[in-house]
Amino acid sequence: MKRRDFIKKAGAGSLLAGSVLVSACKGKSQAEVKPAAVAKTDKPLEWKMVTTWPKNFPGLGTGANFLAEQIEAMSGGRIKVKVYGAGELVPAFEIFDAVSSGTAQMGHGSAYYWKGKNEALQFFSTVPFGLTADEMNAWLHHGGGLELWTEAYAPFGLVPMAAGNTGVQMAGWFNKEINSVDDLKGLKMRIPGLGGEVLKRAGGTPVNLPGGELFTAMQSGTIDATEWVNPYNDLAFGFHKVAKLYYYPGWHEPGTTLECMVNKQAFDALPADLQSIVRNAARVANANMLSEYIARNNDALEKLVNEHQVDVRKLPDDVINSLRALSDEVTSELAAKNEQARKIYDSYKSFREKVIKWQNVSERAYLEARG
Amino acid sequence: MKRRDFIKKAGAGSLLAGSVLVSACKGKSQAEVKPAAVAKTDKPLEWKMVTTWPKNFPGLGTGANFLAEQIEAMSGGRIKVKVYGAGELVPAFEIFDAVSSGTAQMGHGSAYYWKGKNEALQFFSTVPFGLTADEMNAWLHHGGGLELWTEAYAPFGLVPMAAGNTGVQMAGWFNKEINSVDDLKGLKMRIPGLGGEVLKRAGGTPVNLPGGELFTAMQSGTIDATEWVNPYNDLAFGFHKVAKLYYYPGWHEPGTTLECMVNKQAFDALPADLQSIVRNAARVANANMLSEYIARNNDALEKLVNEHQVDVRKLPDDVINSLRALSDEVTSELAAKNEQARKIYDSYKSFREKVIKWQNVSERAYLEARG
Repeated sequence: MKRRDFIKKAGAGSLLAGSVLVSACKGKSQAEVKPAAVAKTDKPLEWKMVTTWPKNFPGLGTGANFLAEQIEAMSGGRIKVKVYGAGELVPAFEIFDAVSSGTAQMGHGSAYYWKGKNEALQFFSTVPFGLTADEMNAWLHHGGGLELWTEAYAPFGLVPMAAGNTGVQMAGWFNKEINSVDDLKGLKMRIPGLGGEVLKRAGGTPVNLPGGELFTAMQSGTIDATEWVNPYNDLAFGFHKVAKLYYYPGWHEPGTTLECMVNKQAFDALPADLQSIVRNAARVANANMLSEYIARNNDALEKLVNEHQVDVRKLPDDVINSLRALSDEVTSELAAKNEQARKIYDSYKSFREKVIKWQNVSERAYLEARG
Repeated sequence: MKRRDFIKKAGAGSLLAGSVLVSACKGKSQAEVKPAAVAKTDKPLEWKMVTTWPKNFPGLGTGANFLAEQIEAMSGGRIKVKVYGAGELVPAFEIFDAVSSGTAQMGHGSAYYWKGKNEALQFFSTVPFGLTADEMNAWLHHGGGLELWTEAYAPFGLVPMAAGNTGVQMAGWFNKEINSVDDLKGLKMRIPGLGGEVLKRAGGTPVNLPGGELFTAMQSGTIDATEWVNPYNDLAFGFHKVAKLYYYPGWHEPGTTLECMVNKQAFDALPADLQSIVRNAARVANANMLSEYIARNNDALEKLVNEHQVDVRKLPDDVINSLRALSDEVTSELAAKNEQARKIYDSYKSFREKVIKWQNVSERAYLEARG
């Protein structure tokens, strides 16, 4: 069977299954559907999760698998979630529409991939010189961020949840030294979201490509540089075979939130206990991914340096200072795009200002004291 | 009714309920107990959670409540958890024994409170100049830490889980300036765990008291100084009324893990889905507490400074350097106490060395770049 045929068949099957499930639940409000009743049916819901990651890709793809496993384990099998890698059911950048339309009940990706739908959505992934992982989680869950995200996804029939975080990323892989901001001029670099906008203002050409296409794009010279995630993920893609300079810190993605989006109709049809299970599974997946990266990055980094002769460098201070100034411009201009972007920006900016003050006497002061 | 009588009656009731529940489940292995069967009984388990915190204390006590709520919501009410503040069912520092004996099915505290049982347990709370919150979570969940903790609690019939984190704490409240390490000599300070050992070597007198007794101890002059948690928590206790100098960073507690401990017999008797719900509820509570603190500390700190004239100061570098050297001594000597302590120390130390290297090119480098 040709791969295209397989995808077509799988796609048709999923549409059918999706509509049967939705109509079975249609018209029932959350209050009417009792947990016990669902438990007794013994007919598990069969959900599909489409993702923007290569199937089983370490950290990201396995993070989506982990989320599915938690939902299945906590629900005692009342919800079974089948995870699809990028291109298996729909291409990476079509998962937003697939979950919105009900082709799949869930998706795992990151909100900045959908800036074509609404530029404001980028705040829910990451912002250059913005919040770290812990700060993003604080803003989302105790600073009004998740409410704003829910509002922003509602017109698409989607319920968003944070379901993974990379922590501070690396600045990326380069084939030439970056000694001044002039070295960014003319650079064709894969860098999504607001970071890409910043690169554009510095004279570069940002390109957005799914992860699975980056190695070939670097190898063929379609792009001169690429960022991806962090040593654990970057080692898995083998970027050290196509570039030797690996810069830090990831000014453009200081704590990227991965998302779990659920088709709203499918979510609303769940009884309260299963809704709570899905939401909490996402929060565990959110924390777990960060923990996994933090535990594994150093070993991967040492392997890159010691076995693959990768040259790890810090971006020069004046490059960082220029990028910070451009980032402020880009972010504040984004706020002027539409009313929703302004509202999200105001919330994000005020949270950022406060949390930086706290971090200066806590996390930052401590990391310096520890040495 | 006298409070003591109330506690006695509640205690007797709980013992009865506890033994009925345990015997109902006794003898069934995990595989024999089917989730559906439990769901159909419609007889909820009624669990007690004893805590070391004042009832509903912001952050810590509400964190225990949050954990109970998630278990109840995800289980659709199949487990109901009643939370008891310190002293309501048993005193704060007796909850370890209460859960071990089955008087309560769950407890919420922190492992360093139980150093009298085994000094090695302190590694599972926090270590001076040790791991931050994110690093602790990485060690516990992806670095072998939780397995070691499980092993260490097994002789007491307890199953441990991380269920809250304070993040980097403040160094504490003082009535005199700390300008050199000599100023710590003769200081009577409430500071638990390994931090207390370090203070002792610096010439001070560490005291361990439950949180609820600190304000009075400071007011009466029983102690000269106290650390507690962070601005959000410290404001709630009103320490600004009994001291004006508030030092940072919390070198002694850089990311204190709060624990959820479950009576092993009660936990093993649960069907697999409820076990997964309890474990994941703890992980969500673990992440949620840190997020709440990060979101709220700055407002509390500003209130302390602007409304209560608190003087926030950084510990001088040479004090930090002395404390770091003493901390290394204390921690490595702890490893020599027993074989288990050595095993945990080796794991912790090797993880710490690696993760510091990664943080130097990620979180720390980024916080400096952001400015």
